[in-house]
Amino acid sequence: MSPKITTELLKQLRQVMKNPKYVQEPVQAYIVPSGDAHQSEYIAPCDCRRAFISGFDGSAGTAIVTEQHAAMWTDGRYFLQAAHQMDNNWTLMKMGLKDTPTQEDWLVSVLPEGSKVGVDPFIIPADQWKRMSKALRSAGHDLVPVKENLIDTIWTDCPQRPCKPLITLDLSYTGVSWRDKIVALRSKMAERKVLWFVVTALDEVAWLFNLRGSDVEYNPVFFAYAVIGMNTIRLFIDGDRMMDPAVREHLQLDSTLEPEFKIQVMPYGSILSELQAVGAGLSPKEKVWLSDKASYALTEAIPKAYRYLTPYTPICIAKAVKNSSETEGMRRAHIKDAVALCELFNWLEKEVVPKGTVTEIIAADKAEEFRSQQKDFVELSFATISSTGPNGAIIHYKPVPETNRTLSVNEIYLLDSGAQYKDGTTDVTRTMHFGTPSAYEKECFTYVLKGHIAVSAAIFPNGTKGHLLDSFARSALWDCGLDYLHGTGHGVGSFLNVHEGPCGISYKTFADEPLEAGMIVSDEPGYYEDGSFGIRIENVVLVIPAETKYNFKNRGSLTFEPLTLVPIQTKMIDVNLLTQKECNWVNDYHQKCREVIGAELERQGRHEALQWLIRETEPLVRV
Amino acid sequence: MSPKITTELLKQLRQVMKNPKYVQEPVQAYIVPSGDAHQSEYIAPCDCRRAFISGFDGSAGTAIVTEQHAAMWTDGRYFLQAAHQMDNNWTLMKMGLKDTPTQEDWLVSVLPEGSKVGVDPFIIPADQWKRMSKALRSAGHDLVPVKENLIDTIWTDCPQRPCKPLITLDLSYTGVSWRDKIVALRSKMAERKVLWFVVTALDEVAWLFNLRGSDVEYNPVFFAYAVIGMNTIRLFIDGDRMMDPAVREHLQLDSTLEPEFKIQVMPYGSILSELQAVGAGLSPKEKVWLSDKASYALTEAIPKAYRYLTPYTPICIAKAVKNSSETEGMRRAHIKDAVALCELFNWLEKEVVPKGTVTEIIAADKAEEFRSQQKDFVELSFATISSTGPNGAIIHYKPVPETNRTLSVNEIYLLDSGAQYKDGTTDVTRTMHFGTPSAYEKECFTYVLKGHIAVSAAIFPNGTKGHLLDSFARSALWDCGLDYLHGTGHGVGSFLNVHEGPCGISYKTFADEPLEAGMIVSDEPGYYEDGSFGIRIENVVLVIPAETKYNFKNRGSLTFEPLTLVPIQTKMIDVNLLTQKECNWVNDYHQKCREVIGAELERQGRHEALQWLIRETEPLVRV
Repeated sequence: MSPKITTELLKQLRQVMKNPKYVQEPVQAYIVPSGDAHQSEYIAPCDCRRAFISGFDGSAGTAIVTEQHAAMWTDGRYFLQAAHQMDNNWTLMKMGLKDTPTQEDWLVSVLPEGSKVGVDPFIIPADQWKRMSKALRSAGHDLVPVKENLIDTIWTDCPQRPCKPLITLDLSYTGVSWRDKIVALRSKMAERKVLWFVVTALDEVAWLFNLRGSDVEYNPVFFAYAVIGMNTIRLFIDGDRMMDPAVREHLQLDSTLEPEFKIQVMPYGSILSELQAVGAGLSPKEKVWLSDKASYALTEAIPKAYRYLTPYTPICIAKAVKNSSETEGMRRAHIKDAVALCELFNWLEKEVVPKGTVTEIIAADKAEEFRSQQKDFVELSFATISSTGPNGAIIHYKPVPETNRTLSVNEIYLLDSGAQYKDGTTDVTRTMHFGTPSAYEKECFTYVLKGHIAVSAAIFPNGTKGHLLDSFARSALWDCGLDYLHGTGHGVGSFLNVHEGPCGISYKTFADEPLEAGMIVSDEPGYYEDGSFGIRIENVVLVIPAETKYNFKNRGSLTFEPLTLVPIQTKMIDVNLLTQKECNWVNDYHQKCREVIGAELERQGRHEALQWLIRETEPLVRV
Repeated sequence: MSPKITTELLKQLRQVMKNPKYVQEPVQAYIVPSGDAHQSEYIAPCDCRRAFISGFDGSAGTAIVTEQHAAMWTDGRYFLQAAHQMDNNWTLMKMGLKDTPTQEDWLVSVLPEGSKVGVDPFIIPADQWKRMSKALRSAGHDLVPVKENLIDTIWTDCPQRPCKPLITLDLSYTGVSWRDKIVALRSKMAERKVLWFVVTALDEVAWLFNLRGSDVEYNPVFFAYAVIGMNTIRLFIDGDRMMDPAVREHLQLDSTLEPEFKIQVMPYGSILSELQAVGAGLSPKEKVWLSDKASYALTEAIPKAYRYLTPYTPICIAKAVKNSSETEGMRRAHIKDAVALCELFNWLEKEVVPKGTVTEIIAADKAEEFRSQQKDFVELSFATISSTGPNGAIIHYKPVPETNRTLSVNEIYLLDSGAQYKDGTTDVTRTMHFGTPSAYEKECFTYVLKGHIAVSAAIFPNGTKGHLLDSFARSALWDCGLDYLHGTGHGVGSFLNVHEGPCGISYKTFADEPLEAGMIVSDEPGYYEDGSFGIRIENVVLVIPAETKYNFKNRGSLTFEPLTLVPIQTKMIDVNLLTQKECNWVNDYHQKCREVIGAELERQGRHEALQWLIRETEPLVRV
């Protein structure tokens, strides 16, 4: 990778920072956040403004450009990548290190007195605006909204905002009609005494209307907002997508409906003025519900006294609890996904061992090929992490030609991959050795496996938050002085984003919502040795009720059921480090893989892969 | 218990709420918080204003009196007690139940428009003022400080504020002189660029000056504030305690000292005016460091721009990490405490079994008697929880004549007790059966024991926060559907408060500071069956470095060493539910009890108790 030369771009940006055509008053600093107007994790090319101005294209990072400086804040995952991708105009601010200043502190240290700091009010979340604005104000500066995005003014070949066709999902996939979802939402609104709800997250809009899109790679979403009143539904969306007869039928746009279910379709860009009109028409005690992560621009459209902000919206919470149609869909998707991976691993064993011609990229492509043969396959759910040897230790690795290694019988291979099927979203990591793993590699793998089982088999009371389970995944590693520097699990959408809130399993958060039956999360402890190898074992698991001997305070208990059914390589397990209970867990799991995936492989006539599955699911025996 | 009749008192309070002698404008509501001006957990009789006005004397509760209503907010521990102690004038607000309004919401619902809500600004912490003031303001009301405490104006027989003699602690107890503590504090102040530090918590004043007092029962503290500048030390304290030659010598009040170590002694009541003078004399960028729990009155004395507020003060954090003199003192204190408990349990076995004449109160008194025979005994560290049978299920039970039960061979007995010795503070819970426990009682006890061991034997990386260990204590209970509704551990002071921050082991908190070697916490999981029995196993444990096979990122690992060395009743253990590792832990622990406490019992010539100890520490054998 050679760095992007940004001298000329920064010069242009500094000019528009003073150009009265774009700014009321010159701004002495301009902030370029990572996100889009919906605070999406994955963004469309037209929203990659921070990558455009700096060259650094990791998933997290904030750029700040002043008249003299250009600085980039990113976290430990991206220190190396950012250093490679940025030229000398940029200072890398390593977040999480003790001496690294916060953005606010840095701004205060470099700005002349009484400076203006500009930011696109559509891109910055309201909570972040508030924090930053307060810090700047207390140092005598001002955070100011700059309506026209200054990067867009200098980005001459900026790609168009995507506007791709929509997919409609019928009841067999969603279990609940969009009408019933609106009814449920309105009842939550009534409970909290709010009159309006503003849907800003793309996956929330998609879920609410039982629609999917492909405007953003890996995430089956489309650019839209919605504003739901007690008697009105407004959908803000661009393009001719609403001309599609299937979509019109699905949304009943041409039917005679009760007025409260009549969807008014409006241009995507009119959200602000429409919301301002809503805000202007409110009487005292009438409230508008927004996520506290909604953009500053939309939040400001509602006068402060009328705002009702929560960290998680009722849609986010409802979406997380999958109904039986969604759960069944997720099960089907995971069976198909396991078929593809059995094919892949069988193919790898045959190719890697004798020939040695498979690279990380070839393996990733082959995985996609096998997945794409499965029914209702749509696309991958994230960029495949196909990594061998030392590349496996780079947690968010994605093979590119410059780093592409060949799989061999001497190195551990880590594959973290997943797909979007019309019936569900998958995300699975397996760590394999195609030769003979060392005792140390097996030892580390087994600790990770013990952690994976400790979470997967955990029984815990209803109402428990996921972060309370995180240490279970680490205990075996901690016992011998090891650990991993990422969370243990994230929520998974149902044919939606592979990362979704409000639940997860991580020591980092405290604001997660309690786990409840029907939620789906990943369980993915790991161990990484810089320069040598990476190990991760990841299943997607469903929260289910647990049967227990007693039932304290009638609270009921929960546990997890693995949806992912792909063998865990027994060659990597040091069986003597497992307890009998752990050993039984592995054997039961493999028995289920054999039964469920075996039947599907048989049905699909994939006999070689079936033989592979049978070999890989032989029971462990403790000596 | 019969309720306190408060009709006349409330009438008087409502009169002073309108009396221009005390309030600038009439207040329509008056808040009576639990605490004192130092936000102490344990308070002196003169500060029990909420108990005086309502009759409810639990440790947590806030009273609010309006012209029409009187309401009391308290938590689940005290629902029953509060209901018994309060008359019909009072409405009990059960915190934690879904339908219970917050204090702010309730005030908004009952107050006429534009009301004033009064509170003593010395009693309400600044963070609480801020929250409440904001909520009231947004509903059109005002929170106003009422300088004279309105309860004090009607409390004609209010006890005097205690002003008892001080104890000086020399280096052999404290390890660090007060001068060196001041030097370390000033260096933390310089790091954060603050010029002044205000010490408001009583245990922080005591720790800083290596002094102890007895103004508050169970907590060896004294009423005082301190204000530390870079060149000045001001101690705000009343009475003739500073006339004591030992104290004058200890603080070097009559010596010729460098001016920056010269202590200026000032009246306790002058803190506000002195702090206001400090505040008035500040130049821009000069800051004053306060706890964000300091009172609103003291916080307001410093103009907002000059305040530096943190949840934990540098003294709180330094105090939590015990030095070797303190650790050795804690070890000695725990040995003496174990001797007393061996005597007690031996005595109980001889009294309870054949005679059946021992009540909970007699047992508690006997425990105190044995403790008081030990060297450097000062007082108990909290009210002894001596509870048998169903009383054991009341987590914060304290035996009183009305509830006092007789210990028997048919019930589980739970004793949670501790003492202040000049060299350390103890807190230990043991659960015993003097007859034959049922299989179910043993099963529950063993799950609690498994949780206790899981925490005590846990190995975890340096930098881990205690709340991440909480689930380890619950896992065995969770597996069979059981749990307990309190945290697992709290910080313990060194001849100071038995509960201290900033560390602990609880699912409830996220803001705890990371555990580090030298910190001391309790490990006390339990199980409680309403109406039947209570089980808790509590040791005080010291955080120590752990030896591990590997050392990820050179972070180092930590574990715990039990300081409490009192046998855990093996009769209550179902050994078949223990793993071999757990069994070994119990046997190793008992071996250590036998060696260390045995030697001390021998030295003190307590032969009968020694025989009891030897019997109770026989190794477990798994079949």
